[in-house]
This record gives sequence, C-alpha cells and structure tokens, in this order.
Amino acid sequence: MKGFHERTFVDDALEVLLKRVKPISRETVRLSGAFGRVLGEDVTSMYDNPPFDRSAMDGYAVKGENTFSASGTNPIYFTLVGEVTTGIKPDIEIGDFEAVKIMTGGPIPKGADAVVMFEYTNELNGGGEGEGADEGYGGEIEVLKAVTPGKNVSFKGEDVKKGDLLLRTGRVIRPHDIGIISTVGMTGVGVFKKPKVAVISTGDELLVPSEELTSGKIYDSNSYTISSLVLKNGAVPVRVGIIKDDYERLKSAISDALGYDVVILSGATSVGKKDVIPQVVSELGEILVHGVSMRPGEPTGFGIIKDTPVFMLPGYPVATIFGFETFVRPALQKMQGMRIKSPYPRVKAVLRRKIPSELGRRDYVRVKLIEEKGECFIEPIRTSGSGIISSLVRANGFVVVPENTEGLEKGKTVDVNLL
Amino acid sequence: MKGFHERTFVDDALEVLLKRVKPISRETVRLSGAFGRVLGEDVTSMYDNPPFDRSAMDGYAVKGENTFSASGTNPIYFTLVGEVTTGIKPDIEIGDFEAVKIMTGGPIPKGADAVVMFEYTNELNGGGEGEGADEGYGGEIEVLKAVTPGKNVSFKGEDVKKGDLLLRTGRVIRPHDIGIISTVGMTGVGVFKKPKVAVISTGDELLVPSEELTSGKIYDSNSYTISSLVLKNGAVPVRVGIIKDDYERLKSAISDALGYDVVILSGATSVGKKDVIPQVVSELGEILVHGVSMRPGEPTGFGIIKDTPVFMLPGYPVATIFGFETFVRPALQKMQGMRIKSPYPRVKAVLRRKIPSELGRRDYVRVKLIEEKGECFIEPIRTSGSGIISSLVRANGFVVVPENTEGLEKGKTVDVNLL
Repeated sequence: MKGFHERTFVDDALEVLLKRVKPISRETVRLSGAFGRVLGEDVTSMYDNPPFDRSAMDGYAVKGENTFSASGTNPIYFTLVGEVTTGIKPDIEIGDFEAVKIMTGGPIPKGADAVVMFEYTNELNGGGEGEGADEGYGGEIEVLKAVTPGKNVSFKGEDVKKGDLLLRTGRVIRPHDIGIISTVGMTGVGVFKKPKVAVISTGDELLVPSEELTSGKIYDSNSYTISSLVLKNGAVPVRVGIIKDDYERLKSAISDALGYDVVILSGATSVGKKDVIPQVVSELGEILVHGVSMRPGEPTGFGIIKDTPVFMLPGYPVATIFGFETFVRPALQKMQGMRIKSPYPRVKAVLRRKIPSELGRRDYVRVKLIEEKGECFIEPIRTSGSGIISSLVRANGFVVVPENTEGLEKGKTVDVNLL
Repeated sequence: MKGFHERTFVDDALEVLLKRVKPISRETVRLSGAFGRVLGEDVTSMYDNPPFDRSAMDGYAVKGENTFSASGTNPIYFTLVGEVTTGIKPDIEIGDFEAVKIMTGGPIPKGADAVVMFEYTNELNGGGEGEGADEGYGGEIEVLKAVTPGKNVSFKGEDVKKGDLLLRTGRVIRPHDIGIISTVGMTGVGVFKKPKVAVISTGDELLVPSEELTSGKIYDSNSYTISSLVLKNGAVPVRVGIIKDDYERLKSAISDALGYDVVILSGATSVGKKDVIPQVVSELGEILVHGVSMRPGEPTGFGIIKDTPVFMLPGYPVATIFGFETFVRPALQKMQGMRIKSPYPRVKAVLRRKIPSELGRRDYVRVKLIEEKGECFIEPIRTSGSGIISSLVRANGFVVVPENTEGLEKGKTVDVNLL
C-alpha cells in the first residue's frame, strides 16, 4: 500500500520489453491492400523502367546532330517518314534528316536519339493524321530549334534498372512506393501481418457509453482510446470490453485473450488493494516491469504470458495514452519489423513558463504551441492531472522532461512533439 | 499540337475548383469506427467529468484542515470510520479527525475534502480489509504530512462540464478525441461520409501488373498510386482499371463512373492527338481548367459533370502525384468538411545547390534532406523528369518554388515538405 517498491527507468524498461518481443509472421497482400502496410521483404526490380527508350514530349523523333544549326531564322527541313503509336513497338528506322511523329511515352524509333517538341516545328505539307503507314507517309517539317542527342528522351532503365533494390524490409508503404512496385510489374507484396490486439478495460466503476450514468460510475473511455491507438499503429484491435475487478473473471479474461498477439489491460494496475491484475499476470506468466519512473504513467507495467506480451496500463486516460506511447507503440513497431520511432513530428519552441519536474523521473507535459511573428512558443497546460483527458484536446503537443533534470526553465528552447 | 493555349495559375485554378466542390453528406458511426473520420457535428458534453468528486490517489479521505500541523515528527491521529469502494456511491459522512480509506477514482465521501496518500500514513490497529462495513470499522491511522483542502481530489466537472463544446465539426478524429467522446457517454458520432472515388488509368500502352511485359508497353502504376492517395485522404477508391485511348470506351467509362462522388482519370490529358479525355469531359459536362502553370503537372485539368468533380491527371507518375496533391487532395478535404491543409510537416533547411525555375510557374522539386551537426541541408534530386518515380523514393521531401521567382539560390533557407 506504500507505492511501488521499485520504479524502473523508462529506457531500462523499454530494453527489457524489446528483448522479449519478436517480429510477427508475414503474408502477401495485393497491391490494392498494401498502402500503409509494413514491407516484409526487400523489393527488387524485375524489369528496367522505362522498359525502352521513350519520348518525354509530344513532337518529332530525329537524329539530334541533324538539328545543330536550327533556329527560328534558320529552319532545317526533315522528311516525315512515319508516326509512332504509343503502346506499339515501331518498326521504322530513320536516316539523316528524317523525322517521325511521336507522342509522350512513345518508343523512340531506331536511328533517332532526340525529340523536337511540336512547339519548335512546323508541318509543311503531305503527311497528316489518319494515314499512319510507314511507306508513302510523305510530307516535310521544318525544325526551328536545335536538340542535342538524348534531348526529351527517357532512356531504358533510367528510372529503375532490372535487379535494383527499390525498397527495403521494414518500410511503411507510401502511395508512391505502391507506384514503383506496380511499375516493375509486381502484383502483390510481402508484408508483416497486422498484430491482433485484445483490449480490456477493468474496473467496477466502468460503464459502457450506452448505459445510463449512475452514481459513483464513469464511462469506459480507455478501451476506445487504446483501440484507436492500436489502429493508428497498424495493428487490429479487438475490444473485449469491461471486466470487473474480480480475480476469477480477470484470470479467465486474460487467459482467453492469449490467442491474440498482444493483450492490453487498462485500469487497476496501481498498488491499491483491488489491483489483482499484476497478481493474475504473474500467476499465468511473468511480470517484467511494474512501476516506471514516468509521469503520467507511473503504474504502467508489462509481462509475458506464453510468448504473448501483456501490457498493464493505468486507468487514468492520459496516463494510459502515455503508457501506450512509451511501451506498446515501440513493441507494435518491433513486431511489425518497423524502425522504432516516434510518430510525432518535432519542432523547437521557447518555453513561456517553467516546467517543474523531479530528478530521476521522465515527465510528459502537455503544452499549447503558439506561433507569433514566425517564432514558436509553448505554454504548459495548467490542469494536467492524468484524469483530465480534455487537456489533450486543448494541447497540440507535448514536451518530454528527461530524468536528468529537475525541470525546464522559462525561456529555454525545447523540442515539442506535435499531436 | 502547340502546347496549352492557356495555362492557369495554381491558386486561380484551385479557387475555381473549390467554388464548385460541395461538402458531402453525413452519417453516424459507432465509436469503434470513428478513428480518422472527420467530425460532421460539434460534440458537446452531456455530463460533467468527473461525474463526482473523486480521489486522484490511493489513500485516506479526510478534512484537509485537520492535517495542518502533521509531519513525520508530529503525526496526527485519525479514526478510521470506513472504506470507499470504487464504483459505489459512499453513504458515509466523516467528521473531524475521521478518515475513510479510498482508492484512486473512488468517490470522495461527504465531509471529506482531501486525500492523504498511503505513503504518508500508518495504519495502527483494528480496521483492515474484508470488513468493509461503515459501523464498527474501528482502528486508527496516523497522518505524517499535511494536505490542503482539495489536495488529491479531482472535482466534479474539473475535466469537462456538462454543455462544454468539446470538439468542433471538421476535426479529424484522433485517439484521445475518441476517449473524450466516450467519456461523456456518446455511443456514436456524426461524421462526413467517405467520398467514393472512381480511379481510371488511360492509355493504349498500359498493362496490368499481372500481364507479361511486351514490347512498347508499360505497367499501369497510376491507378494504384492514386488509389493509395485517395485512401490516405480518408476517401474510398474504386479502381475501374485501364481504359484504352478510344473515344467511345472513354465516354462510356466516364459516364458509368458518374455514380461515384469523384472521378479521377490519369494519362492522355496532354495536347497530343490521342488526348480525347478533355473532349469527352467537355461533351458530358464542363471543363473548368486544363493546363496549369506548374511543374511537374502542367497538363493537369479538371471539370464538373452533373455535379461530380472529374480530374484529369497527367500520365507521368510524378506529375500525377503532384497534380493530385495540388487539386484532388484539397477537393477531398473540402468535401469532407476538413480544413484545407497540406498533410506534409514542414522544416526549414539550407539549399546546397541552386534550384532553377521559370517566372510565372510553380515548381515542386524533390529533395533529399540531410541533417549534419544539428543543421538541415537539402540537395535537389538530379534526375527529376516526371516519369522517374524512383526519384520520389530517393527523396524524403519536396520544395515548392513559387511563381514569383526564377529559382532559389544556393545557401538560401527554404521550407521543406517532408514526405
């Protein structure tokens, strides 16, 4: 009843945790389902891209050196010997002072090495659309601008060469990654499975939001918040619901949840007399850490039961969120083969008020970031009890006060994590 | 055949577009499906939170003023008159120098106004767990530290008051927003519907990635990239597939797609002879803009057919992406009632090489951001033809060169949009 006998430093606790968390197995998904998934294999190109020399512009394919003295006052004349249709390999070969009409993306015909854009040409006679045959195409164009060999040509393999390593295992797949995967002709891609996460709220005082609020009760919010955080981190939440602070019920709920890849419990993990969760976890498996030198989130703990990580998050909503962010998020990232990395972009800003803290403890302080005349300032949010979830809605960032300081002085420039 | 007669400035084009795009209708979703959705209504609290004065710590509820001279050397004695169980409204009332055992979250009994943490007390005799009755509880504690009235108490409504406006329409719902929505007892929430977006790739040269790559052909990547961008922006893509550059087929494909909220076409929108899409769009409806002063993405255009926005994106993959980012993304944001805002976090960095540009045109330049000794530098990516999708994989950001400059000088500090 006297608080935690031991509190583990955040970094030490994280090290203990990550040693025990293993990457999950992989599966192949179709391209249309790959966005946001984590690559489970290196992606190597099976083809050159472009797969052939192609025109980067609408114009005429020519031998570049034939155009060298061309200008508006000195046009050079070319015989129009054919036209390239996009999507069909041309069987024309051009000679000196011959030109072939070509559209963007069209394959460059043999003999040509540059494309003059339509803007710098005039079609003089004969030829024209619709005929399309190589022989007897006829007509002439005048070229009004010189193009060096290679101009307006995208060469085979210029983008990607066959065998190039394009994307590495562990990358979260972005839209243009899917573009490049399809460009090289892959129809599916190997990704890490999405961990399935059982989410359990505990507490005699909890009601589901559809029940009427009666005296002494509060609505469960943690199971919804945690489920959203699980989704945000690429995993699949399964809301088990609310379990009462009762030894037998908790033991059977936790046992049942071991079929999932991760179990997250919130509430009733502090040292009060009804806190039976740590007892149940240690009976079914092993507690690795219980009690962390952080605020909010000191009662956070975790263990392993039959290879399944089981997280015990505090009941207070803000403490739950920072407990999740500090431990569950890195674990989910490791399970999915990702780099362990904060998802919050960071900016520097000047503190408008002192933030007091305690030596040896890591504090997460919600702040309001204010931009004034191009400079960024932060105000710590005053009401910051860990039961006050509205503070996170008012805040647009948080500051981490490290263990080796008793606080951050007014006027100091600090890193702000943007929410 | 001579390029665009007119090119519209990006901002002018966007203004024309957004005037014609209307917010989509709304629906109610359950909390478990609300993460990442866009709020379609203001959320107002139906309850105070906490709904009652509650303990923020495990300890003893007392009258704070009774503890004023307490210290380690001067303990003050209290009679233990009962215990509060979390989740049940206590019917105890305490008097002077009486204490009630209480757990975090427990309702503060009448008469008490502060909680002394267990750490600063000793239980002396009698009382104890299991008895739990108010009468005859017995026992005594000594208090070793003074607590001011209100200490370790979370007062009713301290977090949220009944009637408080919690979240505004248009907010993208984050995990802790769901926490607060459930805290006030809502079981569902009104959100904007997800726009359904038809995605069509056009071009005779296109193959789906499952086909064998034959001469003159390339794999369609745009429909996959665009679908991912649609997902990223909260909407639902429907890949219609590849349509040949054929007037009749395109006309019927576009007509069929008008059942969706948005239609996106890519490829064949430049001024080459096979570019029948603008023709079809103007026959079925109205072209608003075709040809924009931007690079890549100059051939971008859009129109409206029977109230459905129809986007014509260029065929080259990088141009497609920037065409999407410049026009489709803001339109999807407006349809979903969101603030129109770039999703890319911005940092400042110093240019390592000059970026040339053209007056009157907006350029999107892919760059590599490098951090050295705490300073950020950027290198423009050299191969930057808009057909070179690998440049986006090598890049980790892009710089916007505005219309009013001919380029950005080496050494200049510029904003980098992080990919």
